Amino acid sequence: MIQVVKVGGGIIENNESLQQFLQSFHDLNGPKVLVHGGGRLATDLANKMGIETKMVEGRRITDEATLDVVTMVYAGLANKTIVAKLQALGTNALGLCGADANLILSHKRNNSSIDYGWVGDVDKVNAPFLLSLIQQGITPVISPITHNKQGNLLNTNADTIASEVAKSLAKLEKTQLILGFELAGVLVDPKDESTVISQITPQLFEEYKQSGVVSAGMIPKLTNAFEAIQNGVNSVKICHALKVGEAANNPAIGTLIVG
Amino acid sequence: MIQVVKVGGGIIENNESLQQFLQSFHDLNGPKVLVHGGGRLATDLANKMGIETKMVEGRRITDEATLDVVTMVYAGLANKTIVAKLQALGTNALGLCGADANLILSHKRNNSSIDYGWVGDVDKVNAPFLLSLIQQGITPVISPITHNKQGNLLNTNADTIASEVAKSLAKLEKTQLILGFELAGVLVDPKDESTVISQITPQLFEEYKQSGVVSAGMIPKLTNAFEAIQNGVNSVKICHALKVGEAANNPAIGTLIVG
Repeated sequence: MIQVVKVGGGIIENNESLQQFLQSFHDLNGPKVLVHGGGRLATDLANKMGIETKMVEGRRITDEATLDVVTMVYAGLANKTIVAKLQALGTNALGLCGADANLILSHKRNNSSIDYGWVGDVDKVNAPFLLSLIQQGITPVISPITHNKQGNLLNTNADTIASEVAKSLAKLEKTQLILGFELAGVLVDPKDESTVISQITPQLFEEYKQSGVVSAGMIPKLTNAFEAIQNGVNSVKICHALKVGEAANNPAIGTLIVG
Repeated sequence: MIQVVKVGGGIIENNESLQQFLQSFHDLNGPKVLVHGGGRLATDLANKMGIETKMVEGRRITDEATLDVVTMVYAGLANKTIVAKLQALGTNALGLCGADANLILSHKRNNSSIDYGWVGDVDKVNAPFLLSLIQQGITPVISPITHNKQGNLLNTNADTIASEVAKSLAKLEKTQLILGFELAGVLVDPKDESTVISQITPQLFEEYKQSGVVSAGMIPKLTNAFEAIQNGVNSVKICHALKVGEAANNPAIGTLIVG
């Protein structure tokens, strides 16, 4: 079973929580892939450089200067910091963006009424290349920058990358997707970490949406998760990023997505 | 024969010369590796972020903030821009820094009277991994950031990286090192591109140093080049970066280092 783990920006912004997460990820046995975001680190750098950050519905509008910023932060600083720290723990990590070895081909988003700029929607993941790295004992660490094979880099949502990577690997090997973030799972009461919903079916998801139990940022995350499970990924779990090492095999941790 | 090509910061700072160089590099037949710097791109970003750049004898003093800057610029923006552009040309490039797959292990410089900060001196190159990529038809693109396997990234001179990579590959396969920069080769008269010295021996190098024909930045570059040829690299050439495609096999182009 290959484990594809996504870690959100909030965890990696802080040195201490990053180190805790990486220890948990290192403890996860077996072949694995890490997909990371960068979140506010990019906003911080943009601020320092005097570049205005524009967000629409939680998505970053990526003009040319912003594309440079996210490439520097996600594919550079965040990616290489994670790789160096994993190497120190003994995980043979290799950092990649979607342009490397043509890993993730995407196209500039063009089906939207909003101009998101240099934002890419994924067309294809080079899963055989990922698998060849994994078979050499290497742990790929993927930053959410893709390319269009016409020389342009594109900013791409990290949850989407994790889901697409898991879907493409699932065609070759059994694959589990673990979405790590700042909460213990999908919660009935967002303020109470003890109210983790242990399993969600598509029917429950609909009910929770209507009753307002899940809302805002949780809806695209869950939609992405259901999309993965419905496209061949063997198991999808949403849990606290510092618990990914245990969540893989322990049903008491996190929320299991049931297709 | 594996070609290890180094391209200097000056060429990649400019979109037009970068594109010309990458076309020339793409035209180079056979297995190859690219090592790049970033030069003034890092200084520009540091300036925008209000970080002071300190250079001693042409080397960047790398405090913590500067390490973040060079990691963002070299391993992020410069590396991924080059990879995406090579992918567009049809070269299957893969960007790496020294932490990736433990490619280049180094240690923090500690034998100097000057405190260079987070600057690394190379201990070991993972040449078997580079060779495995090359054998898969992949062209490694290496940025001059290394690591100490204790979780720290280290800023490392790109000429040194090129030389160390070539030396380690030369133990496994025939290897040529091509140092591309802004001039046509080592010149008798630095202002006259027609005065390229076609071959330099160690004896000529001594003579040129004494007579002042070679000076300043050229001395470490040539010292590096002789070090490579004396450590098993089969051929070393210094030439204009836009001629690397032709220089490999054409004795009329650039300066050949003779061991």
